[in-house]
Amino acid sequence: MEVKTSSNSVRFDKQRCSFIVLIMFFSLPAVNAVWPMPQLISSSTDRYPLSPRQFIFQYASGSSAKSGCSVIDSAFKRYFPLIFVDYLKAGGPRQHDNWFRLPLNEGVFTVLVDVRKADCEGYPDPDSSESYKLSVSSGQASLRAKTVWGALRGLESFSQLVYQDDFGQYFVNKTEIDDFPRFKFRGLLLDTSRHYLPLPAILKTLDAMSYNKFNVFHWHIVDDPSFPYQSSTFPGLSSKGAFHPSTHVYSQTDVSRVISHARLRGIRVLPEFDSPGHTQSWGKGQPGLLTSCYKGSVPSGTFGPVNPAMSSSYQFISRLFKEVASVFPDPYIHLGGDEVDFTCWKSNPEVRGFMQKMGFGTDYTKLESYYMENIINLTKTLNKTSIVWQDVFDNHEKLCCSSLSVVEVWKGGCYLCEVRRVTKSGLRVILASPWYLDQPGPTHDWARYYTIWPLAFKGSEQQKSLVIGGEVCMWGEYVDATNLSPRLWPRASAAAERLWSDEKTTSSVTDAFPRLTDFRCRLLRRGIQAEPLFVGHCRHEYEGI
Amino acid sequence: MEVKTSSNSVRFDKQRCSFIVLIMFFSLPAVNAVWPMPQLISSSTDRYPLSPRQFIFQYASGSSAKSGCSVIDSAFKRYFPLIFVDYLKAGGPRQHDNWFRLPLNEGVFTVLVDVRKADCEGYPDPDSSESYKLSVSSGQASLRAKTVWGALRGLESFSQLVYQDDFGQYFVNKTEIDDFPRFKFRGLLLDTSRHYLPLPAILKTLDAMSYNKFNVFHWHIVDDPSFPYQSSTFPGLSSKGAFHPSTHVYSQTDVSRVISHARLRGIRVLPEFDSPGHTQSWGKGQPGLLTSCYKGSVPSGTFGPVNPAMSSSYQFISRLFKEVASVFPDPYIHLGGDEVDFTCWKSNPEVRGFMQKMGFGTDYTKLESYYMENIINLTKTLNKTSIVWQDVFDNHEKLCCSSLSVVEVWKGGCYLCEVRRVTKSGLRVILASPWYLDQPGPTHDWARYYTIWPLAFKGSEQQKSLVIGGEVCMWGEYVDATNLSPRLWPRASAAAERLWSDEKTTSSVTDAFPRLTDFRCRLLRRGIQAEPLFVGHCRHEYEGI
Repeated sequence: MEVKTSSNSVRFDKQRCSFIVLIMFFSLPAVNAVWPMPQLISSSTDRYPLSPRQFIFQYASGSSAKSGCSVIDSAFKRYFPLIFVDYLKAGGPRQHDNWFRLPLNEGVFTVLVDVRKADCEGYPDPDSSESYKLSVSSGQASLRAKTVWGALRGLESFSQLVYQDDFGQYFVNKTEIDDFPRFKFRGLLLDTSRHYLPLPAILKTLDAMSYNKFNVFHWHIVDDPSFPYQSSTFPGLSSKGAFHPSTHVYSQTDVSRVISHARLRGIRVLPEFDSPGHTQSWGKGQPGLLTSCYKGSVPSGTFGPVNPAMSSSYQFISRLFKEVASVFPDPYIHLGGDEVDFTCWKSNPEVRGFMQKMGFGTDYTKLESYYMENIINLTKTLNKTSIVWQDVFDNHEKLCCSSLSVVEVWKGGCYLCEVRRVTKSGLRVILASPWYLDQPGPTHDWARYYTIWPLAFKGSEQQKSLVIGGEVCMWGEYVDATNLSPRLWPRASAAAERLWSDEKTTSSVTDAFPRLTDFRCRLLRRGIQAEPLFVGHCRHEYEGI
Repeated sequence: MEVKTSSNSVRFDKQRCSFIVLIMFFSLPAVNAVWPMPQLISSSTDRYPLSPRQFIFQYASGSSAKSGCSVIDSAFKRYFPLIFVDYLKAGGPRQHDNWFRLPLNEGVFTVLVDVRKADCEGYPDPDSSESYKLSVSSGQASLRAKTVWGALRGLESFSQLVYQDDFGQYFVNKTEIDDFPRFKFRGLLLDTSRHYLPLPAILKTLDAMSYNKFNVFHWHIVDDPSFPYQSSTFPGLSSKGAFHPSTHVYSQTDVSRVISHARLRGIRVLPEFDSPGHTQSWGKGQPGLLTSCYKGSVPSGTFGPVNPAMSSSYQFISRLFKEVASVFPDPYIHLGGDEVDFTCWKSNPEVRGFMQKMGFGTDYTKLESYYMENIINLTKTLNKTSIVWQDVFDNHEKLCCSSLSVVEVWKGGCYLCEVRRVTKSGLRVILASPWYLDQPGPTHDWARYYTIWPLAFKGSEQQKSLVIGGEVCMWGEYVDATNLSPRLWPRASAAAERLWSDEKTTSSVTDAFPRLTDFRCRLLRRGIQAEPLFVGHCRHEYEGI
């Protein structure tokens, strides 16, 4: 169903309509339908008709970004058909198009974009401003932003303000928006090792991410089951470690395409090369890298984590990461470090000898710590900051906090206790635990992803400021291109609003329901196979997919 | 992953390979990969190369069904590209096709079909035999069946015996199959009221059903939220009760197309018009049909179930069902009868007066019973047998068992206790409770749908014979065309094997896992968006969808 809300100011609009009313399929003209909710939005019932034939995007005269700015130019091209959804489909003006019926003095509607700092060829980074101000009035929308990335967020909001009436006529209401993200890091993880995801599935996910204002694509690109990253330094890693050496790999061209597609949408690509555990597939193309497990005094033929006792291991990682650091422009690399099983290390005489030599006794967490510090340090020499899973912090709380920077919290239970502990150590945190969307469970229950409060722990303001954001994780055990989209959307959208919006104005599930229902219809119309929240229908549900 | 099994006889093949081995991505040539498992199958490692250019289907000389038999003719046409999956895609012989390399004396491979009773223009019915015998030897496969429906099941099995080696060459192994279904009723319910499903989604589901040997499409076509069935007698029902009167309806042509598509695949279409509850949408196009609820002494403006006190209600149902009975050829109609809320009836003075007049006291189950008996009887006058949800039996156990025929058990808890009770009353049972696939829960857990034993209750042989089958239910609250296929498949396949196969040869989840993994890859290649069971990949996973 397409539930539309009408109000003068969404910010102060506490809808009182009951659930029963919601499912009675009311259809009111849509205004304020921006998801995730802007920090400040006020709109009036004054509305302006829009015509695709009398609509242009333009750079404001004082804007630093000007025609030729790749990020904004391509956004103009992209948002036109997202705003006028019927236009291109019909191959031009629709037969019943109303543009020619507009009063002549209406003239052209102009979206004027004014960007202060024109980082048009750069990449979004962890400190990029994404704030913007949008003012929609008669004949004009004025969009001001400090950066091109902020302008992208503003264009997305503008596109969501436009709606069609029952006759197909486009409208936008008089609106003022002053917006910025609640959290700097709003990530989505895809796992391309447990199942290979073809390039179009990744690119489509990036599109949907931009509609939801997510800004980090965490690419868990390799893991135990397969190594699809085609390394130029070590081609054997994918030729032997991928599910298939030709069809189930990401070539350098593929990776560039992902990075470029993401950049144009203001999305960082954060690569993860998870070690020393989760590396079974690495061993296939790099003999000697993994620890040979022993049964008694003889090798059992199976392998464990990366062998931390061999200097060759670090030489290999160093060369691999040097490549990774140059391929992926983001200043961060995710080093993994989760779920290291010590059984194999313990069985290997060489590793045991190394433990003795290093004075680690029988404490294998020290060995793990030694390994992690080594690769964190070599990451630093590549001018990259490292992110690790919480295990690294948990196992080395006393030991190596000086080397750690950002810790991603993923374990269940009292995850806010963990957030508290990590921030108390002065480290930054990304929260993932409550947003494991691949998990079995009441999969339709978007509300449980919505009612997550990352800062609801006892701690100082300083500690809270260290929570840089959160991340939706779509692990791949049970997910591939057949079910990725409906499992992600619109459930991930619930997390998106939590990470972008002010929790004070977005605390109510009842208020969010009709807005998310409406937004899901919009996703569907844009070709994202987003599943329904509940009984009903979208007006255009079978056009986009 | 494409796990292939190789054995001389699947029937006696208890695979001992552990889960670990399974996820190590073995790829052996596929034989015996028929899902659901035939009652008897034995195959040898002798294999015969097949070429699309030297392969024909033929009617056996003594067959009653001959060229011109619509069911078999169209199956021949359908199964050719299902067997030679590359052939049509490549627009003819593939560049590397090996057919020309076949030894000349191989000649043409012929699938000879021999059908005893040629009911070529009829419909499958509840008593139709689906048994078949298939014998694959050098140069020939011989398929014998009592009916065209049995022949369809045999063709499906044959198509699944064919596999390709790493060079794309097609093979079939020497095989003997003697097969018949364990249960006569193997249903799948789609709910087109809570969300409208476009025709292609229904037709595709019918295709997938035939690959799984399901034989009843239970069409829960209308319910509270919408009435998409376009009635010729009462056009107002859909013009006012559908989500949209033009785009979200099933015209008579649409319905015919579904019935015809199903027939050609040996699938019955069982329509459900659920009353007296679940009828909110009916009321929109048929004023006066529903009970007007009262608040005190005045109508509240809301409506309850069909008004059982008005003779006009029965006249309406009679006329509607007369149409339904002629549109849907199946000898059964599902009358629903579940979840009738008495609150509104109790509030209505007219209904209360009727209760008094009929001597029902304050026992509203008697009123419900009166209503159901009336519509069951009028169904009988239309020469149709009725199926009802278990509520009707539960509420009227003593009263109306003489009118009941088939009871569908849907409630959770001890559903086998219910099966026992119903069969003890001499009524037939369809089991749905354990196969609510739309339900939230560990959605990837196909094994829980596999390890269901419909006859595992204490009862006589006579009682057990009354369990005519089971049904997968895909209710529509959270399901529409965006997520239908990956939510259904291959989870419904687990139920399909339980309903078709001998439970003695299909009791092990471990044995089923690689077979179902393989079958899922086959579904994917046939264009069914079936989700993965676990980590891995299919060789051809991105061609079909």
